[in-house]
Amino acid sequence: MNDIFNFSAGPAVLPKKVLQQVQSELVDYLSPDGNVGVSVMEMSHRSAAFMDIATRAEADLRTLLAIPDNYKILFLQGGATLQFSAIPLNLAAAGDRVDYVHTGQWANKAIKEAKRYADVNIIASAENTNFTSVPDIANWQFSDNSKYVHTTHNETIGGVCFDGIPDVGERILVSDMSSCILSEPLDVSRFGLIYAGAQKNIGPAGLTIVIVRDDLLGNARQECPTLLNYQTHADADSMNNTPPTFAWYMAGKVFSHLLAEGGLAAAKQRNQLKAELLYKTIDDSSFYQNPVALANRSIMNVPFTLANAELDSLFLNQAKAAGLVELKGHRSVGGMRASIYNAMPLEGVQALCDFMEKFEKENG
Amino acid sequence: MNDIFNFSAGPAVLPKKVLQQVQSELVDYLSPDGNVGVSVMEMSHRSAAFMDIATRAEADLRTLLAIPDNYKILFLQGGATLQFSAIPLNLAAAGDRVDYVHTGQWANKAIKEAKRYADVNIIASAENTNFTSVPDIANWQFSDNSKYVHTTHNETIGGVCFDGIPDVGERILVSDMSSCILSEPLDVSRFGLIYAGAQKNIGPAGLTIVIVRDDLLGNARQECPTLLNYQTHADADSMNNTPPTFAWYMAGKVFSHLLAEGGLAAAKQRNQLKAELLYKTIDDSSFYQNPVALANRSIMNVPFTLANAELDSLFLNQAKAAGLVELKGHRSVGGMRASIYNAMPLEGVQALCDFMEKFEKENG
Repeated sequence: MNDIFNFSAGPAVLPKKVLQQVQSELVDYLSPDGNVGVSVMEMSHRSAAFMDIATRAEADLRTLLAIPDNYKILFLQGGATLQFSAIPLNLAAAGDRVDYVHTGQWANKAIKEAKRYADVNIIASAENTNFTSVPDIANWQFSDNSKYVHTTHNETIGGVCFDGIPDVGERILVSDMSSCILSEPLDVSRFGLIYAGAQKNIGPAGLTIVIVRDDLLGNARQECPTLLNYQTHADADSMNNTPPTFAWYMAGKVFSHLLAEGGLAAAKQRNQLKAELLYKTIDDSSFYQNPVALANRSIMNVPFTLANAELDSLFLNQAKAAGLVELKGHRSVGGMRASIYNAMPLEGVQALCDFMEKFEKENG
Repeated sequence: MNDIFNFSAGPAVLPKKVLQQVQSELVDYLSPDGNVGVSVMEMSHRSAAFMDIATRAEADLRTLLAIPDNYKILFLQGGATLQFSAIPLNLAAAGDRVDYVHTGQWANKAIKEAKRYADVNIIASAENTNFTSVPDIANWQFSDNSKYVHTTHNETIGGVCFDGIPDVGERILVSDMSSCILSEPLDVSRFGLIYAGAQKNIGPAGLTIVIVRDDLLGNARQECPTLLNYQTHADADSMNNTPPTFAWYMAGKVFSHLLAEGGLAAAKQRNQLKAELLYKTIDDSSFYQNPVALANRSIMNVPFTLANAELDSLFLNQAKAAGLVELKGHRSVGGMRASIYNAMPLEGVQALCDFMEKFEKENG
């Protein structure tokens, strides 16, 4: 089968070049020193060949995001969801006040878990717009004494994204970047901690990246499981126990690919072009609709509805027949969602737009 | 490069047939209904194609181990090490008594973490034999009121294995099976909970299997992170959040391969043959030594020392040149260790034995 464009929200499309390279060396890894005779999956995480992979991946990520030296990069497991627990367990004592901005379903999950460990203050909520915008920072009700301010930079389900990094002053900004990390350059120094599940812009599911400022380490509370303690992983270069080696390797391939394609400034250009094309198709039509405030439209996840929801199944079936797959909206919201991560080529978005215009003509 | 035999303790050798099959469909997954046009790594975990993979993997594991219906199989992340925390958090309240058998370095890690959450009673220890045996169950000092009895069925570093399943009566037996699961048939009904990191006999690192009896679910303590609560995963068929899809898929391939090769009775025969060959080479020589009590010798991990430790480097270098890699003993104990998991072919062990005999002749 050829020319499948995969709009899955995650696990999601990976760069074809990376997949082909991984395929070529899947049984016999090609190291910088030549073939090693075994698969990456079969290599001890403490072997020289894997240590080289791990070190290069970290260095390339540091280059891509221009991560300052006083930030540790951790390669972990458990997804962003496990970080919902780890963050309060590491950054707040029991009963401490922590500030959360409520922007949708993923923010809500983070809030729900944090409430089990800390005194959560929801300092702003987009509920009044049905989570189709990010609350204006002018109206955030910061706590006087919160340990951190948590944001969900890009809501994968709602397709809502922060318009830049919020200025929280001297407060510690903690952000879930799962569905937007590496989509554009980012000033990491504005954050205390950034975390992201890998399965959108980084690599396969089963890897979670945490980028944390040095001075925030070492304060995990007593009941924090050892493997949820950031200090454990910082001390051991993420090898306190066996890391997800294959996912780490794949992430390294993706980082290296992104660098070769011009880094994150170039990625941003490509992503904006794709997003503009799709939003224009939606906005130029009276058949498709995206509810998100213009300033907060995600360039990664684009939800849209059809004028007549009874046509949803026909749309999905015909799209699939045209090679455009995984367009069904999240089960909680319905409609459609096109996730157009870094690895989605412009041709994929163009093919989707062409299909949408054709479908509208035939059914609108 | 050809004919590399990889004795890594984990991540470890995988069946060549499985790797080749995975390679062939890495870019375009071949489902039972034909090619799907995307990589397994790019598929939503909630897609029909992945749900089919997940369901078949679980069913095949249930068949392989004849797992009774009243046991849940969970596909998790974090390795056995994260389970060291999860077990007391799920099965004991703060201050509850729990019994642990101390058989070596992995048991010790489990004990150390459990002590942070419960009143740990070390009911038996092999310290008096320098952890070269499993303490005789006749001498285990069971607590009257412990919530469970924890064993490390096979010590990966020490090469020490239980000689059968200990009879703990009505007590709940919890066992770390990371380095021996699927090496032979197992009466799962004798256990309350079995856990295993995947990276030895199951698949790539980044997947952890937990097999838990139904009635032990639902008792996690308040401070247990949601993703460490077994009930969370049981309720969601291990898809509360995005699971490590590629590792799960690989595990399914390994399960299916094992079934095709005759199941675990046949695996046991193959493993015993390999282990007997290697132990005979060691025992027939005055140059190599394995310190483990005969009844407790692991058929998966075979540590051995050379009569003269100054020859270790030469042994490792010449072995590597002969295509026999990852034979260095764990950094904490030195010497050699040959891990001969399911996927190590008999020819690999034969090649190692031939090399050992030659090396002894030249240097003994």
